[in-house]
Amino acid sequence: MEKINLEQKFSLFDDYWSPKIVGELNDVHVKLAKLKGEFIWHHHENEDELFMVVKGNLLIKFRDQDIQLREGEFLIVPKGIEHKPIAEEEVHLILIEPKSTLNTGNVQDERTTQGEWI
Amino acid sequence: MEKINLEQKFSLFDDYWSPKIVGELNDVHVKLAKLKGEFIWHHHENEDELFMVVKGNLLIKFRDQDIQLREGEFLIVPKGIEHKPIAEEEVHLILIEPKSTLNTGNVQDERTTQGEWI
Repeated sequence: MEKINLEQKFSLFDDYWSPKIVGELNDVHVKLAKLKGEFIWHHHENEDELFMVVKGNLLIKFRDQDIQLREGEFLIVPKGIEHKPIAEEEVHLILIEPKSTLNTGNVQDERTTQGEWI
Repeated sequence: MEKINLEQKFSLFDDYWSPKIVGELNDVHVKLAKLKGEFIWHHHENEDELFMVVKGNLLIKFRDQDIQLREGEFLIVPKGIEHKPIAEEEVHLILIEPKSTLNTGNVQDERTTQGEWI
């Protein structure tokens, strides 16, 4: 059992769109990600996904609306809902999601990952 | 689907040791709590519990060690592990835990709650 310092963990990686696992509780992973640029449209068949912004502004596009998340805000995207994250400037993000979650959801591409522990 | 602003949600309540539900994803609740003073020794039979401090300093006592959490730090307490949170000054906390979690775990007292939505 060890406490996690978010700032220290964010200092350990620089790659974008590649979530790192920093904790697990029951069936859930806590991940950190750095985002910059545009991600792909995707959805998760079975997993709800929590996005919490700790630095920057994250735009999440949906088919029927856009939602802008700022520092200290979070959004839970329910399973099945298509979304496309966009970070004009670098964003630091906490993700809470079931362990089975792939970052690209129903799509497989060169960025697809379930996350690695740091 | 609605984004949650942590500061705004924390402004909605003032009672201590009474977690409020602000989100759900799969089998998990996201809760906010304000803490001040000492809580009871307890454990959770089946639930791991994540404590993330957003304001203040939280001491969590265990039978074999103490862990001090500051702003921007989190700790996951595995099921079965006895713990006792202590907040000398007011602490604002995010909790991530299975929906079945009671704040007092295996103990029932006048503060026992599964949380209410705000």
